[in-house]
Amino acid sequence: MTPEAAAAARPRVEGDREQEILDAALEVLAEHGYDRLTMDAVAQRAKASKATLYRRWNSKAKLVVESLARMKTTPEELPDTGDLRTDLMTAFCGMGGLTDHDTTSTFGAVITAVTTDPEFAAEFRTQVVGPKSQVSRTLFERARDRGELRADIDLDIIVPALSGIVLHRVFVLGERPDAALIERAIDQIILPAVRPQV
Amino acid sequence: MTPEAAAAARPRVEGDREQEILDAALEVLAEHGYDRLTMDAVAQRAKASKATLYRRWNSKAKLVVESLARMKTTPEELPDTGDLRTDLMTAFCGMGGLTDHDTTSTFGAVITAVTTDPEFAAEFRTQVVGPKSQVSRTLFERARDRGELRADIDLDIIVPALSGIVLHRVFVLGERPDAALIERAIDQIILPAVRPQV
Repeated sequence: MTPEAAAAARPRVEGDREQEILDAALEVLAEHGYDRLTMDAVAQRAKASKATLYRRWNSKAKLVVESLARMKTTPEELPDTGDLRTDLMTAFCGMGGLTDHDTTSTFGAVITAVTTDPEFAAEFRTQVVGPKSQVSRTLFERARDRGELRADIDLDIIVPALSGIVLHRVFVLGERPDAALIERAIDQIILPAVRPQV
Repeated sequence: MTPEAAAAARPRVEGDREQEILDAALEVLAEHGYDRLTMDAVAQRAKASKATLYRRWNSKAKLVVESLARMKTTPEELPDTGDLRTDLMTAFCGMGGLTDHDTTSTFGAVITAVTTDPEFAAEFRTQVVGPKSQVSRTLFERARDRGELRADIDLDIIVPALSGIVLHRVFVLGERPDAALIERAIDQIILPAVRPQV
């Protein structure tokens, strides 16, 4: 058998099948949390063999991080309405935003693992949190360029604040992250904190 | 045997022994997270029998919530320096505050369980989060009475914001919660957000 023929004969995981397995991983994750997720359970949910999963992802950390990274976390087009308040509402209340139940469930499911498993934490921060933070940063940088922010603003602390405030209310206080909650946090905290002092 | 003699003969869990078991539970929790904590592991760490643990706590949820609720989470005396900034720094940087490594480790260890186990979540919110929130609320109410806050302040959203901002940076972004971080969050976000607009 030629190497090409051998490669063609080897079962592969790609395209739609790959997406089905990643979706199954997200479902199992949301139901059981990272620590109790097993490759067996994901294989069963996706109606695939465990061997198939391991051919593509050599650990559950890699499978879970990839499934999270592929989630539709930002609108295709970043909002750019010329107004920070509207941009933030659009980004945070859209698909993959914090009012999206799937997003917050899966996020909650990995937080303990992030605190107890340094390897998983590093992958999660690079591949999942990094791109999300960059979206928020871009919105604030545009607002700064338009003169909406005070001169001594510290973007490193302001940019992730809204996520922190909302996620804390969802996970620690047990609230639903609806648009009204995001709006209160923007109007009561973020905008008063960033606007130029007269 | 009289009922009194029977009670005296029955092994009990109290005083120092109880505290040792609760301390062991916190240690196991910080190391493994709630989902992977077992009564066996806590019993072994505390050099107690599993039966002893079950005589006092009929589930791991009850044992863990009680161990968290007993942690020294607030200074004996609530800070009351006449200045919101100093009060917040004192409360958040003290023992049981967010710069205390034990506090944040154990907190991270239960977050996934809070999102996946409604019974545990309810106990955790009532017995652990509630008393902590009340401390912050008192500091802000005193500041409002001193005229430090703007008139239209929404305390329900402001009070938990600092915890949310800091915990998010610790668990999601992977930072250490030192006094400098708490200070930046207070000076860049909380104080500008609450002070009266001129």
